[in-house]
Amino acid sequence: MKETHQGVPILVHGGDWAGYQAEYHKSPLDFSANVSPLGVPQGIQNAIQSAAAVADRYPDPLCRSLRRKIAMHEGVSEEWILCGNGAADLIFRAVLAKKPERALLTAPTFGEYEAALTAWGCQVERYYLQQEQDFRIGEDFLEVIVPGIDMVFLCEPNNPTGLTSPRSFLMRVANRCRQCEALLVVDECFGDFLDLPEEHTLKEWLVEYPNMMLLKAFTKLYGIAGVRLGYTLCADSGFLQQLAQAGQPWAVSSLAQAAGEAALEETEYVARLRSLIQTERPFLQQQLKALGLRVLPGEANYLLFFCPVPLIEPLRQKGILLRSCANYAGLHEGWYRTAIRTHEENLQLIQALREVLS
Amino acid sequence: MKETHQGVPILVHGGDWAGYQAEYHKSPLDFSANVSPLGVPQGIQNAIQSAAAVADRYPDPLCRSLRRKIAMHEGVSEEWILCGNGAADLIFRAVLAKKPERALLTAPTFGEYEAALTAWGCQVERYYLQQEQDFRIGEDFLEVIVPGIDMVFLCEPNNPTGLTSPRSFLMRVANRCRQCEALLVVDECFGDFLDLPEEHTLKEWLVEYPNMMLLKAFTKLYGIAGVRLGYTLCADSGFLQQLAQAGQPWAVSSLAQAAGEAALEETEYVARLRSLIQTERPFLQQQLKALGLRVLPGEANYLLFFCPVPLIEPLRQKGILLRSCANYAGLHEGWYRTAIRTHEENLQLIQALREVLS
Repeated sequence: MKETHQGVPILVHGGDWAGYQAEYHKSPLDFSANVSPLGVPQGIQNAIQSAAAVADRYPDPLCRSLRRKIAMHEGVSEEWILCGNGAADLIFRAVLAKKPERALLTAPTFGEYEAALTAWGCQVERYYLQQEQDFRIGEDFLEVIVPGIDMVFLCEPNNPTGLTSPRSFLMRVANRCRQCEALLVVDECFGDFLDLPEEHTLKEWLVEYPNMMLLKAFTKLYGIAGVRLGYTLCADSGFLQQLAQAGQPWAVSSLAQAAGEAALEETEYVARLRSLIQTERPFLQQQLKALGLRVLPGEANYLLFFCPVPLIEPLRQKGILLRSCANYAGLHEGWYRTAIRTHEENLQLIQALREVLS
Repeated sequence: MKETHQGVPILVHGGDWAGYQAEYHKSPLDFSANVSPLGVPQGIQNAIQSAAAVADRYPDPLCRSLRRKIAMHEGVSEEWILCGNGAADLIFRAVLAKKPERALLTAPTFGEYEAALTAWGCQVERYYLQQEQDFRIGEDFLEVIVPGIDMVFLCEPNNPTGLTSPRSFLMRVANRCRQCEALLVVDECFGDFLDLPEEHTLKEWLVEYPNMMLLKAFTKLYGIAGVRLGYTLCADSGFLQQLAQAGQPWAVSSLAQAAGEAALEETEYVARLRSLIQTERPFLQQQLKALGLRVLPGEANYLLFFCPVPLIEPLRQKGILLRSCANYAGLHEGWYRTAIRTHEENLQLIQALREVLS
């Protein structure tokens, strides 16, 4: 599926505002990347500006100050935290640290798990989610976690479906992984967009499952995808050290560290954003359905839907970027993912879709 | 040599201003990191501030605009350029893309080559540079590049010695690597601090040696170590694509991309910095010698010297950070590296050393 452009792999993800700008010489309305539609909080911008003045120094490789604040925020020990250059950095580190021979992924799911596993040279096995079951994970997932599987990735809520699995089921997955000595990576990068994040995170089980690492990102919730900042929570300090050594020491820029510290102060911004998503999610869902489209009951800040009419180009010509999910393993032409944005922007999307479909 | 702190590997490199600050509650005078002593150029700070305002978007994974400007600056095709989260990112990518079984390093040299090779699981062979020869590479280096060696790292000028090898010799190394099908990584990150950079870079040989990649960094020359930005030049577009896939697509933050574009406009800053280093290098060298110390004839913005008296702690108590090179393979207790800073700062270092030694 990977196209190349000037010898460099071209975008298989959403968010290609730069490609749009190069072609149209203006900014698109971007529904193709799942980031906060409220922009970069002023407090974070200020923190970046202050950090830029002293960015002649190397970043603190241990992210000491930031990790202390994340620890307070998450209510876990700072010894369980490793920061990365976005959660994607930690995905590649996890693979290099674990050195798996066989790994298990669902399909569809976030593409960078497979990218990292393939770069390492691991055999990737797929558990195909079924369209008829709204792409929910079934009980039989437990049966494919067998000895010999070294690593399992789960995205909760899943990208691009936006769906979560019951915690009782995830506990059985974690148990099964522990039995098989598999590393379980649970990607909770979109977890804070759920209505009840605390009821879904597996954070409390870290001690019980030292074979589990959770991934979290600042990217989406604080509107700083361009800054690159993510972290992992894991109770196995030996493995955390391997993760740290599976990449350079200065992966997290000092600008990102400052941005992260400032982000954790942005409680009002987060409350406003979460409230917006809670209101707009059912609205956008209902509007898409009213257009006759099948929409999955996504629980995060994006929705997966099916449309038999090609949408990418017509919307692009109207200045709107949408994410085609045709290149996801387990999906095909006609599946699209849209971010949930502000009410006015969502209305623009619906209006544009109405025009394309009529 | 790796110490740990709270389960995370602690600093084996210089530049630990954060550790100093935590202990002393003030900023140190940092001679332990080889960065520009002139601070972050205002133009770069402004660019970062502007970029921060739109950092809710993902970075352009292809770094299109920045690569275009680097191409003009370097006089090479933009298809030969891949940007990374600092040159260190590209070192890890190079190893993951090449998947070497046996690699050759000099000793002493920059520590991240070994870190990346070890993380991958490669056998590392060492060519030990001899103290009696000022740690210069000898002719016999060619003899240890043999079939079965997949990858060779060369740091030119070498870190921590500051010495370069003649270009005629480097051509023979490149030839030998080509014969053995080894990837040659030439790290030119400090090349722009040489008096005659254009006479040392191997840039013109990229076409002839597609098995060679050059590493360059914005970090040191533009005083933006905290921002993280480096790039590689390589004429093998297939390999460049493998490099791109040996890590996440969004490694280079949008702040770093903006900083890099602004940096390339900073010609006056670079001229001032290069002139400072050219003046201060012989001055600091002569001052260190006047203290009775053995100093290598370094050609970059740092100097390696030997001192039988322990220096790190006494200098630290005077607010000065120096880099002990005791943890470099091929060096031992007593070797120190100092950055070259402004005249006033260099005088402070000399005065502090005089006090410690008296």
